[in-house]
Amino acid sequence: MTYPSLTLQLPPWIHEVIHEVGGDIQRSFVTDEERMGLAVALSARSVEEGGGPFGACVFDDSGHLVAPGVNLVVPAGTSIAHAEMVALALAQQVLGSFDLGADGVARQLVTSTEPCAQCFGAVPWSGVRRVVCGATTEDAEAIGFDEGPKPERWIDELQRRGIEVRLGVLRAEANAVLQDYATRGGPIYNAQTG
Amino acid sequence: MTYPSLTLQLPPWIHEVIHEVGGDIQRSFVTDEERMGLAVALSARSVEEGGGPFGACVFDDSGHLVAPGVNLVVPAGTSIAHAEMVALALAQQVLGSFDLGADGVARQLVTSTEPCAQCFGAVPWSGVRRVVCGATTEDAEAIGFDEGPKPERWIDELQRRGIEVRLGVLRAEANAVLQDYATRGGPIYNAQTG
Repeated sequence: MTYPSLTLQLPPWIHEVIHEVGGDIQRSFVTDEERMGLAVALSARSVEEGGGPFGACVFDDSGHLVAPGVNLVVPAGTSIAHAEMVALALAQQVLGSFDLGADGVARQLVTSTEPCAQCFGAVPWSGVRRVVCGATTEDAEAIGFDEGPKPERWIDELQRRGIEVRLGVLRAEANAVLQDYATRGGPIYNAQTG
Repeated sequence: MTYPSLTLQLPPWIHEVIHEVGGDIQRSFVTDEERMGLAVALSARSVEEGGGPFGACVFDDSGHLVAPGVNLVVPAGTSIAHAEMVALALAQQVLGSFDLGADGVARQLVTSTEPCAQCFGAVPWSGVRRVVCGATTEDAEAIGFDEGPKPERWIDELQRRGIEVRLGVLRAEANAVLQDYATRGGPIYNAQTG
């Protein structure tokens, strides 16, 4: 038997979202709020397109967008394709390295919702030095998403590995996307009971 | 800018390893030890081929191999491509579903070493109902690998989600591969400090 490969590919509308925020003209996303604005815009467009309500981006320390990510669980047919995983993996493809800090540049992951257990566990191996979150774990769980078995002190766990964490950036805007998704009756696909 | 895609593809020698254990003739891997034998054989071949010392497989409840996985961090250029992630994602491609339990079949992940924080976090979303491990977290850490910030009671966390865990199957054989890797001076690539 020959085994299939897995390809994670961003949908074509990604570029429209980036264009709408001016991100395709080499602009820098200087503040956390500007960076989160793009992650939230990606999550909102994903919902409009029938996808999951999550967006994430990797930026370098000068605010240049390295790679965006959206939840591809349904289109790619795999539970590993959460927005953060996609952003991290594609940023690594852009840079040609499995370590986003290998060249000494401090990159960061900006995600529209606090990471679930899987994406939390992916952060230390990715090489990012900072994680910025919008909607909270409670916001995600309030609409039925399961964030999974994260360590209770997950922020401390990252910080003691030298990875800074900032929470609640544009939380209201990020949570509004989750609420919109719930209102539309979007499936809570990543809490499968098998 | 157009963003690259990520493709996870098994190396061609995967089929040789499966052939060597007779797994290409529709055999069933009935016992945990037979299943682990394949995962360990994959980890050993990976080391011989210059890769990381980890192998994993997804089996269905009758012992049919759904998909194998090896660590592809270096060849695929991404930190998300641990052996367990590859096996889960490719099994989902084989079955055409992001949920390995969607059809009611109880599938399981058999991994040559206990999962790190990332792969642990991936398990609840994958749809597997059982995880079987060979070498221990301590074995991996003894040669310098960092298993990351897993919850202290990670086994309980899986079990209370209905996912059975069995540890230490062919531990000596699995650990021998880790030791061989260390003796050869293999890089401890997933503990990058960025």
